[in-house]
Amino acid sequence: MPAYPHRNAAASRLSPAIFTRLIPIIKKLPKPPIPLHIGDTWIDPPVASRVENTVQHLPDNVYAYAAPNGMVEARAAFCERWTRRGFSGLDVDRVHVSVGATGGVSAALHAWCEPGDEVILLAPFWPLVRGMITGLDCKAVEVPFYRRVREGADVRGLIEPHITDKTSVIYLCSPNNPDGTVLTREQLQSLADLCIEKDLWLLSDEAYTDYAFAPNEHHFIATFPGMAERTASVYTMSKSYALAGIRIGFLCGDPQWLETARRVTTHSVYNVNVPSQVSAMRAIQTGDDWVEEVRDRYQTGAELVASRLQADFLPAQGGGYVFANLDKDLGDKQLLTWLAELLHEGVSVSPGQAFGNDFSRWIRVCYMSVPLPRLEQALDIVNRSLDRLRRGDDLPGVEIPPISL
Amino acid sequence: MPAYPHRNAAASRLSPAIFTRLIPIIKKLPKPPIPLHIGDTWIDPPVASRVENTVQHLPDNVYAYAAPNGMVEARAAFCERWTRRGFSGLDVDRVHVSVGATGGVSAALHAWCEPGDEVILLAPFWPLVRGMITGLDCKAVEVPFYRRVREGADVRGLIEPHITDKTSVIYLCSPNNPDGTVLTREQLQSLADLCIEKDLWLLSDEAYTDYAFAPNEHHFIATFPGMAERTASVYTMSKSYALAGIRIGFLCGDPQWLETARRVTTHSVYNVNVPSQVSAMRAIQTGDDWVEEVRDRYQTGAELVASRLQADFLPAQGGGYVFANLDKDLGDKQLLTWLAELLHEGVSVSPGQAFGNDFSRWIRVCYMSVPLPRLEQALDIVNRSLDRLRRGDDLPGVEIPPISL
Repeated sequence: MPAYPHRNAAASRLSPAIFTRLIPIIKKLPKPPIPLHIGDTWIDPPVASRVENTVQHLPDNVYAYAAPNGMVEARAAFCERWTRRGFSGLDVDRVHVSVGATGGVSAALHAWCEPGDEVILLAPFWPLVRGMITGLDCKAVEVPFYRRVREGADVRGLIEPHITDKTSVIYLCSPNNPDGTVLTREQLQSLADLCIEKDLWLLSDEAYTDYAFAPNEHHFIATFPGMAERTASVYTMSKSYALAGIRIGFLCGDPQWLETARRVTTHSVYNVNVPSQVSAMRAIQTGDDWVEEVRDRYQTGAELVASRLQADFLPAQGGGYVFANLDKDLGDKQLLTWLAELLHEGVSVSPGQAFGNDFSRWIRVCYMSVPLPRLEQALDIVNRSLDRLRRGDDLPGVEIPPISL
Repeated sequence: MPAYPHRNAAASRLSPAIFTRLIPIIKKLPKPPIPLHIGDTWIDPPVASRVENTVQHLPDNVYAYAAPNGMVEARAAFCERWTRRGFSGLDVDRVHVSVGATGGVSAALHAWCEPGDEVILLAPFWPLVRGMITGLDCKAVEVPFYRRVREGADVRGLIEPHITDKTSVIYLCSPNNPDGTVLTREQLQSLADLCIEKDLWLLSDEAYTDYAFAPNEHHFIATFPGMAERTASVYTMSKSYALAGIRIGFLCGDPQWLETARRVTTHSVYNVNVPSQVSAMRAIQTGDDWVEEVRDRYQTGAELVASRLQADFLPAQGGGYVFANLDKDLGDKQLLTWLAELLHEGVSVSPGQAFGNDFSRWIRVCYMSVPLPRLEQALDIVNRSLDRLRRGDDLPGVEIPPISL
């Protein structure tokens, strides 16, 4: 009998983040490590978006229930910005305010997929999307992609062999988290052609859309011919405006399916927090210069990592991270053991397995999370630790995490 | 092939609120009707919880990602209040901050139920819960309950015939939305005994827990012997503190299953809005007197409705509404037609079908949504309209909603 104490099988398969295994070690350290593991920024959000500066902009009924698809003023501000950035054909009826990109990706997948569907994750990928697919009792099909594309592989050639009659969605992120790849217009066109030919949905995670570094250019794949009706474009205030804590995002697409996604969110959160929709609106309305400045700062960070980090990775073309392959450096050592050693040396980075099963010996390094001098200091620590690793020297007295990867 | 343009069948069955069919009519009225249809309050929230007064209480990292289970300070404030109110054994590890009660109910159902499960809804019930069950591909089993219990029926006798080997959960709300029933300790004990005997989960919607009117008393069923491990207690800031717009709630239960629910929410919203967790915390810390005052006001409203409204309903023992059976009054008229007429006369109330399939000729009347003089005015309008209805007189020139119930 499927009653107490039974729990939903798909939900029970959801696992906590791999990084959480390292938290007990961090708690025992005399001082916190330099945090290059997180996907957060050290920069303050635009002044106009700060709580104290939104008060005069709050609607009279700010504490009442609000429209489940979001404040029309916030959606209009978002449309105006994306239209200026080249997203043609956008209007408020094609935009739903979500709880971050997390809420947008989750709602789109729920609106589209049946249990048993296969969702192609171009890998490496944002960790939570795999859990969402698991939670829907669907299958995540991980396709190693971004690095191979940058090394010259053909987009169609990489993906097509993984498409079956159960495939319903391809998940894309460009600029990519975790490896900083920005796909070219031609590469995106190949992906679009494939989606149209195979009748697939495309879930385009635009979390880093504002952070492609010149000469690389970001393109909205939803605006390619034939893609508007089959693409969900997901955006968040977390990365573009350093507003992760307010949990505001935008889910964009054809009203035909967006209405289904809206009903999913009505039944899981009702509407989205009203005061923070005002914060988001004010950030978007006032933040153009702020975004330009922050992009320059991140690009400087990315260039520092590219020139300084002594590991096997490709420089970031955008986003906030690089993704390095430590397979040769590690030798016989488990990645998690080295991560624990690196914590004692003063730096935290993310274990690669969160970003795909093929990456259990990779790491993600974030360059958004600390100012440049501190990033420089952290990279020196990582380089010295990697040198030690390659020499085969253990760090004495380090507690090893109880669960290996 | 389950790909574009296919949409998830269960999600596609989610319907918009029945009331939305009346919105085009409302938009054409010369002035808005007195809103007795909504579940919102006209009263301002506690002063300390207002955005402008929370600024000095915001954490330093308010714009960064936060703990997916919620701020420990907010959870501690909530535990302190519920412990004082008689919820024994509560601590921060048994509390998860959710996006309103909506997020809490949704996460608990997702954590517990498998597709095909049957969930017993004691009817009439809060409308969104039925959609959540549909969205999970489960079956909502509606059991007419609260009025029959108040008329003397036996709790077990009403429910037991509907329990099958697919039943996994019973959904309870006391004080109840929409009919204001407050179950007695003995009635709750019968329900608890049944859950334990049949090995069922209990989902206890505590949205109106602070608003039982003396001499009726609210009891936390989760504190009854044997119930702690099988009960989810769901709470929201929307009703108790007039803070619906900030979308903060609390989901309480045994960590064994609460961890599964937490992972579900991590994969649908990540963490909950940080600034508003501070609003919630401040409301709880400062709002005891506010709640007492508001309860008195609502009770006065409930008494006004009880003495004034000329319809077939039982007086509210708590909550914010009464639920009236218009079956005899309506005669041959569709409820939705009369609701449209009533809009032209100046008042909006909710169609009963949202609260259960047996209630297509009932209405919910909210007494929280307007001050007393306006409530009095609205009740006079409703009474005159009901008189007209019983006389069989149509209101000339009223546009009839295109879709009948």
